[in-house]
Amino acid sequence: MIIPKAISGFKELLPEEELIQQKVIEVIKEGYSNAGFMPLETSLVERNEIILAKGGIDNKEIYTLGKLGESGDKELSLKFDQTVPFARYVAQNYGQLIYPFKRYQIQKVFRGERPAEGRFREFYQADIDIIGDKVLSKSYDAEILSVISSIFKKLNIGGFTIKVNNRKLQLGLMESLEIKETTEILRILDKLDKLDAKDVFELLLEFTDATNANTLLTFSLDSFNDIDKLEQFCSNDTYQEGIVELKDLIEEAYLLGVDKENLVIDPKIARGLDYYTGVIYETFLDDYIQLGSICSGGRYDNLASTYTKQILPGVGVSIGVSRLIYIILKYNLIEKASQKNAKYMIFTSSNKKEMLLVAKDLREQGLSCEISFLNNYKKEMKLAQKKGYQYIVIPKDNSIIIRDILEKDRTLSDIFLKQI
Amino acid sequence: MIIPKAISGFKELLPEEELIQQKVIEVIKEGYSNAGFMPLETSLVERNEIILAKGGIDNKEIYTLGKLGESGDKELSLKFDQTVPFARYVAQNYGQLIYPFKRYQIQKVFRGERPAEGRFREFYQADIDIIGDKVLSKSYDAEILSVISSIFKKLNIGGFTIKVNNRKLQLGLMESLEIKETTEILRILDKLDKLDAKDVFELLLEFTDATNANTLLTFSLDSFNDIDKLEQFCSNDTYQEGIVELKDLIEEAYLLGVDKENLVIDPKIARGLDYYTGVIYETFLDDYIQLGSICSGGRYDNLASTYTKQILPGVGVSIGVSRLIYIILKYNLIEKASQKNAKYMIFTSSNKKEMLLVAKDLREQGLSCEISFLNNYKKEMKLAQKKGYQYIVIPKDNSIIIRDILEKDRTLSDIFLKQI
Repeated sequence: MIIPKAISGFKELLPEEELIQQKVIEVIKEGYSNAGFMPLETSLVERNEIILAKGGIDNKEIYTLGKLGESGDKELSLKFDQTVPFARYVAQNYGQLIYPFKRYQIQKVFRGERPAEGRFREFYQADIDIIGDKVLSKSYDAEILSVISSIFKKLNIGGFTIKVNNRKLQLGLMESLEIKETTEILRILDKLDKLDAKDVFELLLEFTDATNANTLLTFSLDSFNDIDKLEQFCSNDTYQEGIVELKDLIEEAYLLGVDKENLVIDPKIARGLDYYTGVIYETFLDDYIQLGSICSGGRYDNLASTYTKQILPGVGVSIGVSRLIYIILKYNLIEKASQKNAKYMIFTSSNKKEMLLVAKDLREQGLSCEISFLNNYKKEMKLAQKKGYQYIVIPKDNSIIIRDILEKDRTLSDIFLKQI
Repeated sequence: MIIPKAISGFKELLPEEELIQQKVIEVIKEGYSNAGFMPLETSLVERNEIILAKGGIDNKEIYTLGKLGESGDKELSLKFDQTVPFARYVAQNYGQLIYPFKRYQIQKVFRGERPAEGRFREFYQADIDIIGDKVLSKSYDAEILSVISSIFKKLNIGGFTIKVNNRKLQLGLMESLEIKETTEILRILDKLDKLDAKDVFELLLEFTDATNANTLLTFSLDSFNDIDKLEQFCSNDTYQEGIVELKDLIEEAYLLGVDKENLVIDPKIARGLDYYTGVIYETFLDDYIQLGSICSGGRYDNLASTYTKQILPGVGVSIGVSRLIYIILKYNLIEKASQKNAKYMIFTSSNKKEMLLVAKDLREQGLSCEISFLNNYKKEMKLAQKKGYQYIVIPKDNSIIIRDILEKDRTLSDIFLKQI
């Protein structure tokens, strides 16, 4: 006999936990759909030449596919994010899509990295992107904000903050300071969340002088959520373009229903990738900031330059569903409903045939019910309580009643139940 | 530049096709949930010792995982069905589940076999199973039928037939004929769908004499959907137990709302696996029988004997979602809705700020809308038509109207839209 054990980093949920995950995914899907995003799924498997074409991941973290007993079949791998397969998909199907192309994609991805708190080897990501053919209105940047904010409001799991910045501010500032090592500097500034300002200062000195390092830190830290102060900080064109974009973004986000309390400008946000060219987003649950951003993304100039000559600007974010579920389950942010997924439990011990007709009636009217086929009333009641059912359906005095088992002996008559 | 191309057997859908797949999965999920099945997902990755413990698949079809640049990491594989991981999951979490445990599982599985029409290397399966702890009422066999039938009714993609048989009939008959090679005989009878009776007769002669072969064929072919005739065919206990179970199954299925036209008894159904011990199901779309069963399963005595000492009888079926989608798309059984996933398109060319407020209002009331951010009415109209929108939202005479673009110049006033 083979005793099964868990595989490190490949997290599985208990049924009552899975119910919560499904509900969270449902809210995300609904939020995306309501804004007109189309569903999309790509294969979990990609050609290695595609997956390795663009950096962004340590190759050692990629899972390749082989066949049992064969060696060397290393042409295919599991995808490690949604963006690379999506870029490949758009390049491949360019002529068959309608632009601006809005899609959502909720799928698992795989990374063979060391598992840590809230980090897994197999995990769900829920991405949205809007892709233009050559051009894409900046107003879509605000739409992304409104979609994300409405989802986190609907999830109702406590306060959240979407932090925005615009890459053009940092690039404009570095331009005016005549700093050339922009990628390295951005990567260092990205550490301001985890390191002291002093340590970041030391790191910056490797690439620029103390005056510039000071200016970069002052910019990053002293104008938090103060667009007027930020506007004064630097006057070159790139920087001021970023300011205008940020102002428009905030204004349009408010019009689209984003609340002031959920949106801040944080010039400290850098994000590692040099991919981004405009707005950058990060999202935190206010009470669990230490667990990192649960929804990040930004604006980019060209999605798929590795795979096509078409110019495809876009903007998008990714919700880290598995990390979110980890936090929700660990801190009980959504109440577990025990192991039930229907509203009513139908007892059959007294008269099975009649009760099957009742089940049919309920289900035909879209009412969910589980039928218990235990031949004993007491056992059925025990099962209903164990599974967490509040409403049981039983015969009484020649009719069928619904009993609320939380309210002892009180019975509910119900409009949809025929007398049998 | 790397030009992307499709990987054989790893099918991807266009957005308007994916919309149909999502709708089909939604109907299946709803059908399963309404009957109280809990959602469950297992990891796509399994330990090899688990995946190889039980036969049922050619090992060459299994995809193993490796790491790029490393060799010999052959401990993990991708799952090839939902049943093996589910059995492992139940064994692993035995004490934390409530029995009868009803779960649904809609996930992708992977088989490195040769792709053929409607057969893929990466495909969706949508399974349900009900697992008892030591015992499980036979009435659950009928519940499976009612759930499946309600799903195929709701899908509304044409006539369908669920064929049922009971393994005990075949086993009882072979018992009375003193045939020992039951597995081989069942595997040959399973070919009656594809081969002539004569050819099957020849194959049977390898394991039994001509009289027995004739009896087996007569049993399989001459009592189609005739329970009374079947009842007379053999009198031993196992056989007659199967008859009683079939009668109960049909009666309870009817009570639960299965229509007579969708359910037949077909003694020819054998299914390859020796796993099954009672009822067996296969489901066909009446107009596409040649594409094979799209939903099969049955009753088994013990789910997870390889991984636990607990006795876990169960009954379940699996819908071959990818094959079903293949048929639906190929024969246009569900109308494609173009590339849109919202009801309204909001034009912003005339007054963006006001229209953003309108979008906010619509979405807050749960009405889906896509915002077009093209700066030109004509372009917006062209996009709406291209995407397939029927309703556009535009300003007119100081108010906001919804225009049905199929009905020229007719405008609809609408209760939920505020005058701005």
